[in-house]
Amino acid sequence: IHEPPLPSNSLSVNKESSLSVNKESLQKQIDELSTFSDSPAPSVTRILYSEKDVMARRFVKNLMGLSGLSVREDAVGNIFGRWEGYEPELAAVLSGSHVDAIPYSGKYDGVVGVLGAIEAINVLKRSGFKPKKSLEVIMFTSEEPTRFGISCLGSRLLAGSEALVKALKQTVDNHNISFLDAARSAGYAKDQEDLTSVFLEEDSYSAFVELHIEQGPILEEESISIGIVTAIAAPASIKVEFKGNGGHAGAVLMPNRNDAGLAAAELALAVEKHVLDSGSIDTVGTVGIMELHPGAINSIPSKAHLQIDTRDIDESRRNIVIDKIRQSASTISENRGVQLSEFEIVNQDPPALSEDSVIKAMESASKELNLTHKKMISRAYHDSLFMARKSPMGMIFIPCYKGYSHKPEEYSSIEDIANGVRVLALTLAKLSLS
Amino acid sequence: IHEPPLPSNSLSVNKESSLSVNKESLQKQIDELSTFSDSPAPSVTRILYSEKDVMARRFVKNLMGLSGLSVREDAVGNIFGRWEGYEPELAAVLSGSHVDAIPYSGKYDGVVGVLGAIEAINVLKRSGFKPKKSLEVIMFTSEEPTRFGISCLGSRLLAGSEALVKALKQTVDNHNISFLDAARSAGYAKDQEDLTSVFLEEDSYSAFVELHIEQGPILEEESISIGIVTAIAAPASIKVEFKGNGGHAGAVLMPNRNDAGLAAAELALAVEKHVLDSGSIDTVGTVGIMELHPGAINSIPSKAHLQIDTRDIDESRRNIVIDKIRQSASTISENRGVQLSEFEIVNQDPPALSEDSVIKAMESASKELNLTHKKMISRAYHDSLFMARKSPMGMIFIPCYKGYSHKPEEYSSIEDIANGVRVLALTLAKLSLS
Ligand SMILES: [Mn+2]
Ligand SMILES: [Mn+2]
Ligand SMILES: [Mn+2]
Ligand SMILES: [Mn+2]
Repeated sequence: IHEPPLPSNSLSVNKESSLSVNKESLQKQIDELSTFSDSPAPSVTRILYSEKDVMARRFVKNLMGLSGLSVREDAVGNIFGRWEGYEPELAAVLSGSHVDAIPYSGKYDGVVGVLGAIEAINVLKRSGFKPKKSLEVIMFTSEEPTRFGISCLGSRLLAGSEALVKALKQTVDNHNISFLDAARSAGYAKDQEDLTSVFLEEDSYSAFVELHIEQGPILEEESISIGIVTAIAAPASIKVEFKGNGGHAGAVLMPNRNDAGLAAAELALAVEKHVLDSGSIDTVGTVGIMELHPGAINSIPSKAHLQIDTRDIDESRRNIVIDKIRQSASTISENRGVQLSEFEIVNQDPPALSEDSVIKAMESASKELNLTHKKMISRAYHDSLFMARKSPMGMIFIPCYKGYSHKPEEYSSIEDIANGVRVLALTLAKLSLS
Repeated sequence: IHEPPLPSNSLSVNKESSLSVNKESLQKQIDELSTFSDSPAPSVTRILYSEKDVMARRFVKNLMGLSGLSVREDAVGNIFGRWEGYEPELAAVLSGSHVDAIPYSGKYDGVVGVLGAIEAINVLKRSGFKPKKSLEVIMFTSEEPTRFGISCLGSRLLAGSEALVKALKQTVDNHNISFLDAARSAGYAKDQEDLTSVFLEEDSYSAFVELHIEQGPILEEESISIGIVTAIAAPASIKVEFKGNGGHAGAVLMPNRNDAGLAAAELALAVEKHVLDSGSIDTVGTVGIMELHPGAINSIPSKAHLQIDTRDIDESRRNIVIDKIRQSASTISENRGVQLSEFEIVNQDPPALSEDSVIKAMESASKELNLTHKKMISRAYHDSLFMARKSPMGMIFIPCYKGYSHKPEEYSSIEDIANGVRVLALTLAKLSLS
């Protein structure tokens, strides 16, 4: 019952000339997708299950359809587009990324890996390639933690997180809208639908490859076209809340204060200190959220909420930083007489390694396309981190302007993007035939 | 043309028995006013020109009318209720406070001085008193800086601030709604209306007296019923903004960062240090607002906005603190490679002294009513600070629970409030006849 391999199905796809990207069309798609945003251009803000997110989803499904992929969505809105191979019972090869965007960010993070994967399919189709293993494109739900504080929500669920299924039943956003209501408003998580339905079966995929902008300066500085990711740094995130008595900024004298905002300020600086004390350039830590309550110039903060992100390629070194942050939070709370009302490690994930077979496919593809390339670490994390739990994984990086990401100045040239799409296309072809 | 003084117009009002406060009714008014709030009870949030503020204004005007006062409003919504004296050409005696409330605050700050002044009029009317100088009650517009960042907006204008008239033409709130549009939506600042119309003429008032909760712990701790304010501390407020490059929390390594949030955290701690270094218990400083942009856990803050409040009873000592804060902001900006994109001293007011004649009236009133009293400093500032520029001024403090203010736990007993109202009524009577 196998469709016989056609002549075009050989590695004729290796020929540089046969893998041509429609740059103009791809750039137009990236530009159009960036207009589905809740902040003014050039910034992009696209929050999970918002009206703009739903518009972006429609846009992506439409492109998948135009590329002849058969589209399905799961209960949280991970979107799959499948190109059936001539041995459809074999585990498929998957590629994709996300299109959600944190507030006031840019138009390439994630997007390049979704629209690029669809264009990689187009490239292969135009070249006459026929897949043996099926090829699938995926758009993950909520790689960014913006709305519900959970990063890589879609891929964590695909990877089978029972803890997340449980947590999502009680998760609400800042406006007290529940995750389930938000999902329903976007057409997902229908009545009685069990979120464990999202879990991937073992061996669903023989490989997963994500194309992404580097979000760091190395490729651009060294004028290298392709980064071949060998490992993804281990991320962790922490929520902290301090509570004090607040009071009037004029009337409460300094010795009688327990200022939750100053406790937060001290902890933010302690995070920086502990990260620098690790002694390794690979340890990073950030306080991206620090909110004071009631937030009035003439009120002593009675409550402060922080969210802390820390990562390292070395998991145990990162865990030492987490321990030190916890100790500092507790010391600061004692010294200032404020209550440490919350110290929650939201996630504390191990690093992930790319699979040798996928690395080899990406390397050969780069070589055959005459593109300069280097192996590197991903310091940002990605859905790949979680897909690695269910499938051999690899990532392709392309250069981006000054390493900028998560801000409006984020930029990759269409030439660099096209190079990435060609390497991705050839890698998918190789993995499909292997 | 003067109405002859009636017998009841003598200092018969001194008699303790003749000055009786309707406690039940006053408490009911305080409770009802607290329901006009944008946050759940027991907290109160009442923002300038909001729907709830307009409801509160209607409530106050109605009470003024029920007390037989003739009501007028000026172009920004300062509300005046007048009880004409039998020598109406004499400069009137004025009393009042504010009813706006910062987010998540309490129901007594300001309110006691507005509803209490109206009740003081009722007390005097019931006692048979007839004023010689007219008595007026005022409700000031926007004592709190919440919406437009300008504290004591109404009294600053009454005091004749040309600079404020100019600034208000371009002032917008956080939602980019202009001051003038907001005022119009509440029925004020009508077309072509010149805000200089709010300025008081010289010698409009022969005295101004404000009744207020102490917002400090002293009276409660010492079991004293009445505080007689001799001076109001000198307040200043500062807006600061730092800008950095932001970027991805995973991808940008620590040496390449210029984190605007950490600059803000350092400055907040520097404010505390400079205040403590003043060596005086009377110096205070607070960072009540610290906002990070874009405010996402995985983004390095590219912008941080702080608002700093500092006060002292000694103006020059406070100004030294301001200078040190400015130096720190600049040093932090250099050390961290962030831009100090704003350092604006929004206001830097001198302290105000109460007038001897008003102090004497408040003292005699307390004595004649057999109420324990002490002279004290107001560390919080009030519309009195600005009214002092146009009129002899005095303030009456009453005890409040643990000195709490600007939070839901703010509380004064109706007995303490009634004592304050009686002292106010007798003080107004004395000043009216003097
Ligand atoms: Mn991202
Ligand atoms: Mn991404
Ligand atoms: Mn206040
Ligand atoms: Mn007040």
